[in-house]
Amino acid sequence: MGTGPDGVIDCAIIGGGMGGVYSGWRLATAADSKIPASGIHLFEMSDRIGGRLDTIRLPGMPHVPVELGGMRIMKSQSIIWALIHQLGFAPIPFPMGGSHNLAYLRAHRFQVGQYSDPTLVPYWLTEQERGKSPSQLVVQAIETIIPGATGMTNEQLRAACATATLNGFPLRQHGFWQVLLNLLSVEAYNLALDGGGFNTVLTNWNAAEAIPWYMEDWSTDPDATQYYSLPEGYEALPWRLRDDFVAAGGEVHLRQELIAFTRRRDGLYALTFHDHGIAHDHVVLARRLILAMPQRSLNRIAEHPLNRAGPTEFFTKPGVSELLSTVTGHALYKFALAYPQPWWHMLGLTSGDSVTDLPLRQVYYFETEGEQPGGDPNNTNSLLVAAYTDGVSVDYWEGVRSSGPPFETQPNPFVAADTPRLGDPYRISALMVAEAHRQLGEVHGLPDAPPPYAAAFRDWGDDPYGGGWHSWNIGVDTKAVMPRIVKPVAQDEVYVCGESYSTYQGWVEGALQTAEMMLTGHFGLAALDIGLASAA
Amino acid sequence: MGTGPDGVIDCAIIGGGMGGVYSGWRLATAADSKIPASGIHLFEMSDRIGGRLDTIRLPGMPHVPVELGGMRIMKSQSIIWALIHQLGFAPIPFPMGGSHNLAYLRAHRFQVGQYSDPTLVPYWLTEQERGKSPSQLVVQAIETIIPGATGMTNEQLRAACATATLNGFPLRQHGFWQVLLNLLSVEAYNLALDGGGFNTVLTNWNAAEAIPWYMEDWSTDPDATQYYSLPEGYEALPWRLRDDFVAAGGEVHLRQELIAFTRRRDGLYALTFHDHGIAHDHVVLARRLILAMPQRSLNRIAEHPLNRAGPTEFFTKPGVSELLSTVTGHALYKFALAYPQPWWHMLGLTSGDSVTDLPLRQVYYFETEGEQPGGDPNNTNSLLVAAYTDGVSVDYWEGVRSSGPPFETQPNPFVAADTPRLGDPYRISALMVAEAHRQLGEVHGLPDAPPPYAAAFRDWGDDPYGGGWHSWNIGVDTKAVMPRIVKPVAQDEVYVCGESYSTYQGWVEGALQTAEMMLTGHFGLAALDIGLASAA
Repeated sequence: MGTGPDGVIDCAIIGGGMGGVYSGWRLATAADSKIPASGIHLFEMSDRIGGRLDTIRLPGMPHVPVELGGMRIMKSQSIIWALIHQLGFAPIPFPMGGSHNLAYLRAHRFQVGQYSDPTLVPYWLTEQERGKSPSQLVVQAIETIIPGATGMTNEQLRAACATATLNGFPLRQHGFWQVLLNLLSVEAYNLALDGGGFNTVLTNWNAAEAIPWYMEDWSTDPDATQYYSLPEGYEALPWRLRDDFVAAGGEVHLRQELIAFTRRRDGLYALTFHDHGIAHDHVVLARRLILAMPQRSLNRIAEHPLNRAGPTEFFTKPGVSELLSTVTGHALYKFALAYPQPWWHMLGLTSGDSVTDLPLRQVYYFETEGEQPGGDPNNTNSLLVAAYTDGVSVDYWEGVRSSGPPFETQPNPFVAADTPRLGDPYRISALMVAEAHRQLGEVHGLPDAPPPYAAAFRDWGDDPYGGGWHSWNIGVDTKAVMPRIVKPVAQDEVYVCGESYSTYQGWVEGALQTAEMMLTGHFGLAALDIGLASAA
Repeated sequence: MGTGPDGVIDCAIIGGGMGGVYSGWRLATAADSKIPASGIHLFEMSDRIGGRLDTIRLPGMPHVPVELGGMRIMKSQSIIWALIHQLGFAPIPFPMGGSHNLAYLRAHRFQVGQYSDPTLVPYWLTEQERGKSPSQLVVQAIETIIPGATGMTNEQLRAACATATLNGFPLRQHGFWQVLLNLLSVEAYNLALDGGGFNTVLTNWNAAEAIPWYMEDWSTDPDATQYYSLPEGYEALPWRLRDDFVAAGGEVHLRQELIAFTRRRDGLYALTFHDHGIAHDHVVLARRLILAMPQRSLNRIAEHPLNRAGPTEFFTKPGVSELLSTVTGHALYKFALAYPQPWWHMLGLTSGDSVTDLPLRQVYYFETEGEQPGGDPNNTNSLLVAAYTDGVSVDYWEGVRSSGPPFETQPNPFVAADTPRLGDPYRISALMVAEAHRQLGEVHGLPDAPPPYAAAFRDWGDDPYGGGWHSWNIGVDTKAVMPRIVKPVAQDEVYVCGESYSTYQGWVEGALQTAEMMLTGHFGLAALDIGLASAA
């Protein structure tokens, strides 16, 4: 392991997700960085870089990237938008399907463009609520409490939320669900929840944070393409950052799980890693420590019993556990199903998503192998992704996903018989695939659609991630708390960054935002030039 | 502390809930017990005996017992029914209100007797489902998969569930939610869930266990009184068992939390207790150890880092952690609101419950102080309990319950100004009381009902309980697993009993059932005489 002449590394970065590789890349390549690239080491517990960006290929579809993690970028997210352009990536629009995609709610099937026709929408709405889509209802509620919210910048809206009250209590003391139930009829809330596709977005998280977060993503016309993706797969971004980091002199160590650390009398941090390659613990000395990890990963270290020395003292210092417990992680399922034909085309469904109140919740339609550059034109294998199953719907699938025998890839003309199985985190039970297919049949009114031949799964609520996204808890004042979390203890050289404690929770932008706060605030770096964002 | 001549106690019982006091009472008083009563010591972490039976009095209502924990007994539960009669308790019917109580679902208000009129019920049901109540719909689904289920004994139904299959998979590999979604229309499931009042009962727990559990409680006519209560409050039962246990020579120690234990070479167990009275740890030696605790309490010991010796080894022995993780605990809220008048009487609501799909979910109507024996006839203070808020509804209240200032008792002619505040576990925020009252107004169509003057709260999902009830996980074969959990390690004198791992989960009967399995199987006791149950 490359270290300085004294065997000490300058900066240990823990976590190979976007927060970690971005921090490493910035520190190793920025002209104003004070840390030599060769002194920066990134440690990752698993055997891959990327964290919750995870692009795989399913058997029989080599030219169709399957995003089991994050898949989209919003142009309004200035850091990620600048970063991908600076690195030469060419994002393409991520089509959302538009008005002909389906809603299947309360056993009624209609097109999302038909929300404007109240006779088709099976919810008992008030006069002012009728004819509105789920997101229009939420925006209407937000406009009631923050008049003019739709026209505000994110900063203006944040400022308005910081001072707003409801029933005499500051907005941040309320939950988003509770605010909506106070400002909409119960049926309008039910429609916003069922038709919105996500269970946890409209749950009771900090309303003063939820409102600007929601407005940025959901307040625009769903027909206007605002999402982008990377055609080579989103994982290419962290891999490129890793390559550039290594090319600059940084080092990456896989299968190294940080299980405890302690500060020695000489000020150095002794980091105890469990090496999952050789199943052995070892110690590394470092001058600084960046924990680029989600909440659950941090808590895993805090809770690790270890060791003669006792668990890591850092987490017992005043304020640290209070800071780390300001957010809640949410399990988030994505499961990909590979079908021999894109049977959804017969309903005019070719992109974007359909929504249902069945436990499947959201279905995204993706590509056909034969239509991809380089794909065999005779290959009609096609991808459908049930995505973002969260909240109470997770309770539905939780026991089912590992019940009984695992799903085995079925015969397909474009799949070789000796194709290796997908690894453990991607596996899924036969029972779950059968039940998901049954629900798809019901959603689309096609109970006889041919079954899928391959499947893959990920739950980002699993250890060590603890959530596909995080939400700020009721009562938290993020303006006061966020700068503290980046460096939780003034006297320590221990830093925290990542999506969990950002105002772009659930997005790569959140990881970059907190990394930038840390790098500009404590490592002397100038902010990333985001001029490219507006130029692109 | 009284021990044998060698300073060793014969049997340490950990946990002062029903499983613990019942085991102590049985071992100390049964004629065939081989353990001297003076050698039996019961240790309880909190400062009260009773566990999840918790009867309090609200200010201004001294004659109205408020059950913040368990409140009902079913006559079919043979052990509890025999026990209360053997001890001379006189249970009284617990009225359920019947057909005129309310359902407020999807912004529609109707009487539960009106489920038979499909034009009033805002769900799109199929021909065979129309006109049925929520529980009738569930029973219809169960009859589809287990024909004749309604006429079976509990044993017959359990046997049928053990061999039944759905879509080619054994029933126990399915979740209850999933089974219902396969056998009912989605709208019938929605109605069963919304109108059933509980969120977690119909979630995805082990279907082979859920079906007999559900049928015992829910398959009968809601008008036929099948529930009973103790007029003095349910807490009187564990207190009586404690008194008889102590009178027989047993000892009770409060504020003693077991944080670790280890087996010494001489076979004795060294138990480390944290004394919450003097904030100090001490060690007790015992020949046998009964852990009469719910799952979360057991896990708290398993996870306790302690100490030079490391965490408790028992929990790392083969099979133990797998056994303990066979169930899932469910948070369960009860909050009591005291009103100056029983405003619900004007709607003809005097007992039992009303149900809503608002986050309040279930409302029980209780007594007026002035109508109680010994109560001041001029005192119209009356009790309403929002009960059994669980599952996704807990997500609604979780942040709200402690947001902002606590609720303070309001002026009331029958409350002295110097009435002491309720203690910590019973406290609730002003925001939560205001929001609950707002929802009550909506449920009853009485937005101007006068506000409550007092309130009390408990969430049995809080530590150390971890759940108001538990459910068996998908895949578990309880017939094989339950006898093992009672004595998880053959070579150890460590026993487990309680509601968590029973077939009467959520009921006192479950704690008694597993205690009896333990006492008859491993302590040489003859079963409790349940002849009294049928005679009563």
